[in-house]
Amino acid sequence: MNTSHPLHLLLNPSSIAIVGANNNPMKMGTMHALSIMKDGYAGKLFPVHPKEKNVRGLTAYPSASALPVVPDLAILVVPSSEIINLVDEFGKKGTRRIIIITAGFRETGSHGREEEERLKETATKYGIRFLGPNCMGIINTDISLNTTVVTLNMKDGRLGMISQSGTYVSQTLPYLVKHGIRFSKAISVGNSTDISLIDALEYLGDDESTRAISLYIEGLTDPRRFLDVARSIVAKKPIVAQYVGGSKAGARAGLSHTGALAAPDHLYDGLFKQAGVIRVDSVEDLFGHGWMLATQPRLKGRRVAVLTNSGGPGSSMAHTCEQNGFDVPEFSETLRKKIEPLVPPHAPCGNPVDITFSMDVEVLSKKIPAIVMESGEVDAVVLHGIMRSGFIKVIYPHLVDMLNGTPLEGILNMLKIDFTSSASLPEKYGIPMAISSFFDFEDDFTEAYHSHNVPVYDSPEKAARALAALLKYRDIQQRLKDSRDESPIEKNDEAEHILNEALRSGRRILDEYESKRLLALYGLPITKELLVRSESELEEAIDAIGFPVVLKACSSNIPHKTGKGLIYLRLSSRGECVEAFGKIQKAAGAEVPVLVSAMAKGEREFMAGFLHHNLFGELVLFGMGGIFAESIGDRAFRIAPLSINDARNLVYDIRNAGLLGEVRGLPAVDEAALVHIVRSIGAIGSHHSSIREIDINPIILEGRSPVIVDALIVLK
Amino acid sequence: MNTSHPLHLLLNPSSIAIVGANNNPMKMGTMHALSIMKDGYAGKLFPVHPKEKNVRGLTAYPSASALPVVPDLAILVVPSSEIINLVDEFGKKGTRRIIIITAGFRETGSHGREEEERLKETATKYGIRFLGPNCMGIINTDISLNTTVVTLNMKDGRLGMISQSGTYVSQTLPYLVKHGIRFSKAISVGNSTDISLIDALEYLGDDESTRAISLYIEGLTDPRRFLDVARSIVAKKPIVAQYVGGSKAGARAGLSHTGALAAPDHLYDGLFKQAGVIRVDSVEDLFGHGWMLATQPRLKGRRVAVLTNSGGPGSSMAHTCEQNGFDVPEFSETLRKKIEPLVPPHAPCGNPVDITFSMDVEVLSKKIPAIVMESGEVDAVVLHGIMRSGFIKVIYPHLVDMLNGTPLEGILNMLKIDFTSSASLPEKYGIPMAISSFFDFEDDFTEAYHSHNVPVYDSPEKAARALAALLKYRDIQQRLKDSRDESPIEKNDEAEHILNEALRSGRRILDEYESKRLLALYGLPITKELLVRSESELEEAIDAIGFPVVLKACSSNIPHKTGKGLIYLRLSSRGECVEAFGKIQKAAGAEVPVLVSAMAKGEREFMAGFLHHNLFGELVLFGMGGIFAESIGDRAFRIAPLSINDARNLVYDIRNAGLLGEVRGLPAVDEAALVHIVRSIGAIGSHHSSIREIDINPIILEGRSPVIVDALIVLK
Repeated sequence: MNTSHPLHLLLNPSSIAIVGANNNPMKMGTMHALSIMKDGYAGKLFPVHPKEKNVRGLTAYPSASALPVVPDLAILVVPSSEIINLVDEFGKKGTRRIIIITAGFRETGSHGREEEERLKETATKYGIRFLGPNCMGIINTDISLNTTVVTLNMKDGRLGMISQSGTYVSQTLPYLVKHGIRFSKAISVGNSTDISLIDALEYLGDDESTRAISLYIEGLTDPRRFLDVARSIVAKKPIVAQYVGGSKAGARAGLSHTGALAAPDHLYDGLFKQAGVIRVDSVEDLFGHGWMLATQPRLKGRRVAVLTNSGGPGSSMAHTCEQNGFDVPEFSETLRKKIEPLVPPHAPCGNPVDITFSMDVEVLSKKIPAIVMESGEVDAVVLHGIMRSGFIKVIYPHLVDMLNGTPLEGILNMLKIDFTSSASLPEKYGIPMAISSFFDFEDDFTEAYHSHNVPVYDSPEKAARALAALLKYRDIQQRLKDSRDESPIEKNDEAEHILNEALRSGRRILDEYESKRLLALYGLPITKELLVRSESELEEAIDAIGFPVVLKACSSNIPHKTGKGLIYLRLSSRGECVEAFGKIQKAAGAEVPVLVSAMAKGEREFMAGFLHHNLFGELVLFGMGGIFAESIGDRAFRIAPLSINDARNLVYDIRNAGLLGEVRGLPAVDEAALVHIVRSIGAIGSHHSSIREIDINPIILEGRSPVIVDALIVLK
Repeated sequence: MNTSHPLHLLLNPSSIAIVGANNNPMKMGTMHALSIMKDGYAGKLFPVHPKEKNVRGLTAYPSASALPVVPDLAILVVPSSEIINLVDEFGKKGTRRIIIITAGFRETGSHGREEEERLKETATKYGIRFLGPNCMGIINTDISLNTTVVTLNMKDGRLGMISQSGTYVSQTLPYLVKHGIRFSKAISVGNSTDISLIDALEYLGDDESTRAISLYIEGLTDPRRFLDVARSIVAKKPIVAQYVGGSKAGARAGLSHTGALAAPDHLYDGLFKQAGVIRVDSVEDLFGHGWMLATQPRLKGRRVAVLTNSGGPGSSMAHTCEQNGFDVPEFSETLRKKIEPLVPPHAPCGNPVDITFSMDVEVLSKKIPAIVMESGEVDAVVLHGIMRSGFIKVIYPHLVDMLNGTPLEGILNMLKIDFTSSASLPEKYGIPMAISSFFDFEDDFTEAYHSHNVPVYDSPEKAARALAALLKYRDIQQRLKDSRDESPIEKNDEAEHILNEALRSGRRILDEYESKRLLALYGLPITKELLVRSESELEEAIDAIGFPVVLKACSSNIPHKTGKGLIYLRLSSRGECVEAFGKIQKAAGAEVPVLVSAMAKGEREFMAGFLHHNLFGELVLFGMGGIFAESIGDRAFRIAPLSINDARNLVYDIRNAGLLGEVRGLPAVDEAALVHIVRSIGAIGSHHSSIREIDINPIILEGRSPVIVDALIVLK
């Protein structure tokens, strides 16, 4: 626990002032106050109100200055025009943490943006750290503090939630309670004017009651800091994130909601992968997968047992598990023999185990899972069909007149069993478990699972997919070593000289020859080549390089050469070369230098690049190359600089990464060489502030060796 | 309605005999009987029991022969060993429809398989048509008939369900009731020994109360008939399907569940696309998307309005809609001006419309949707945040002491409003709507939507995704014209001769030259080429073809040539050719004919093929070609023969279909020519019974013209 973090006091105040609450129960301010008063918070609450003497039994004070103590935290739920004055008042009083619920700032346009700036300045003057504006406040179940408008009804939570939408920490509370999901802390960051989502992430990373963190994101202000913070947390606890700003509509919605600046989906994809954050695409998974990660023991392998009382859900769980990376191994003869006596004749017991319809819930909930967990043959269990009171309630109307008038309650009591030993199996064996039940939260079995922190989902595929979040986290931890490798290259002065020369001559682009020369200065492998301006130079070049060669017009005025008669491949005689040289001069319409390069021999073409993004900063990309690279659209991004591990993960992140391996008798790529190229591109871009963009396409694999065949450097 | 269909009487019996029910409420047979007795069926029920005189108030008969009438339908819930005798008895009695609930047949292994054969024979003897064994029976809400073990509680259904899992028509019933989803008919087909899933599909296709059909599939016995039946239904009503047999684990599970024979996922993908069936991957979507399709007006365009009381759900609905193919257009100034007076200042009203937190539900549920639907600016509406009793229940504990002790019930009554005009908006305007509510079915607003057949989902993304099922159906209807085009080619006798010659000489493969010659006999475009056996023939060939050429060893003994020194590309002089000819002879280790082909000029490489599958029969595939085709793994399948439309959908079904269009200055493919090739491959495979497989890779686009560059025909 980081007690010096600005959020610590905000989440753990011993006294709170609230402005905007009165005695009208339908007023927002009152609803916020009621949550603090009614949900178990043991600290002091001071309503501040210009006219009311008393708010719901608490003495109200006319102003901040009139308060009998300096409250640790102030909560403001008043019109936006009053906010800055109130911040000033609380600043004078000595309060240093504020939650600003009120909306109407940056998200409304330019006037709101200016007001938000003034607000920030006012707070800064007093050293005040604040949450919001345009937020729902916070929940801290450690001290039963709930500043939202909705009843809390949860304690001993394990999931930390940080959201750019207030709804996801308030309107969803009853939904979460039904599903047994409980927040440790929840923080609605709103416009993130001061305390940001990343600050909150940093805090929850150190928070002991938080076992996993869920993030709802409309747009990050500082993706690079997110990367650093998230990556260091992921080593200890999992993070799940939903990002909705990647579409045109999502970006527009986010902007008018919290003033969030969105960026394309593929950049967030790269960011999340680089940081080791598990991405989901619905709030249901944000909560459901987060809860799985917050509660279940870590996975030790990828083998899962599928247990069911019904074939359909069993088949679809097995299918979904396998599609999500699990193995569903057939059980050993020994294990099957142990299960057989517990199930009807002919019932499948080799994984899936299908006990078929049965009212004996202990077989499915306890006996079989225990045998399976004990066997050492699986690392996780997914289980469908445990039901008790839910099912009895449903069939009761059919049975009532056969039960001698016993009321439903009586039947339920009669059939009551202790679910503790079933629900504590994951803890006992250190093996994670997910439950699927169509009776969901309307069953006493589910209640038992909930209270033992075993996640229950309302359909088989959902349980299987949630369980797979553990597998993703396991893979992330194996893949992600937070290495801070040294820069692969030192800055090269001659390279800087090339760039400066180009700038001095007013150019905004290096031609192919210069671009590759610059890369070669950094030791990157380029094709053997010479620039020629005459036929005699051409002859010399051919002698030096040897056939076959490629001839290309080389000028920064013509960066794209394909299809214009400016490029001739696979020339293997002097005659052909001379002819091509002439054709190029003709096609260019003016004398143009010609680049003579060795023809790269290889069929596997990739691309790599460096670019700047206004929000993400320096980025490195890798993808499928060749002339159709754009149409194929198979590329991935990472934030620079790249560690060796980052670069390795990047190159294998493309869809067609299989082409980097052994394929069709060709050797696997020299991984170290490729990783070095990709990292160096990022470092070169960083070393030279005049570089805006480096585009390398293709990188051809000559055997196992990546060779840069074409490159273009764009200047700022 | 097809009254002559075998399922008609089975679903609409006027009298039913049940064997296996007694007076023990925990016995399966009794539970089935109770459902028939208690859920509103108006026909007659006759228990048959060897000992009981009376079952739950109904006279029981000792045997089928003792029954006072010939029941339309018999339901058997007895040990598997008794089934065949009972079928025989009912056959003698005159009953012609039977539901066999009992399991323990094919799914248990070879003895079970034999018993299942005997069962089928016995039934056939009497002209009996039966459902099962190993099933849950049927539901027909038209006549309130429920033969499953779970209480029905639904009427006026619109969704038809056919399932290879009994659970999905029984254990799920309470789940469906909560979600407002109501079956018209539901049919559990079990082992499908006699009446199959496809028979059931055929019946529901003609059933008037069924507006959409959901299918849970572990494996189809006759994919080709499925294609025909489904495609003709899809013209009238949508079909949604989940298939779980495509993974190793799913296939194994299906086999032990209903003895289903599974096939790879990609074949089902092709089948569903060809048939126009919407594929889902969870039972939740099977029901949820099915219900959307069964209830909402058809989409007229792809523009959706996003309405919300909270920014987060608004943003994620907008994002999810766009990701699923919808446009989320910004509203016109005129429309915005109409909405503005209804929402707080600064609230976004340009789409999404976010009214922010409000207790005035009529604004969000009625006023704004009506304005938006009337505007003509959208084709669908997705709406989050309608809540009434659900929310009040949640905040009541906070308010109770401010409400002068008014009990919750009183508050709810006080705030009651009539939701009818809100819930009937889709019907009124003919515009589909999906609702998202975290209060889900625990809210009186939801109840109103349910009773008006407006689907409600428990999270924003789920509502948006379900709405997108309508868009998929719209796209399918535009894409799928059920054309039965003539075969593109007539059988060629010379081609048959080539095949017969090869067979006669004991070969199981045609060499490249023969393969392409056969294709050329059918008018398909192949590279210009000649087969040579000597240097002098080589010279002649070069003269006839012109440089550059390719030389390849050509023998059915060496079908794969890459990387063995047996293939030489881009030869552009006699010397090179002679040298290559010599090298090939040497590499082959024996005299080998050499194929001299014109070098195809083009960068875009595809592949196509014909193959047999033991379950799917004759298939055609199309995909990305070239030497890395396998590693890239971008291919799609269709069942042969292919209509022009089928072939067009197939070639554009690959991930990289963009390469078929205009790209990098290259023209779009000659679509008619490519479609002709793909269809012809299928037809050639069909025409010649000796062909097992045709592999064409690559097909190179020379400009816009597809040319077959390499081919191989494998014989049976």
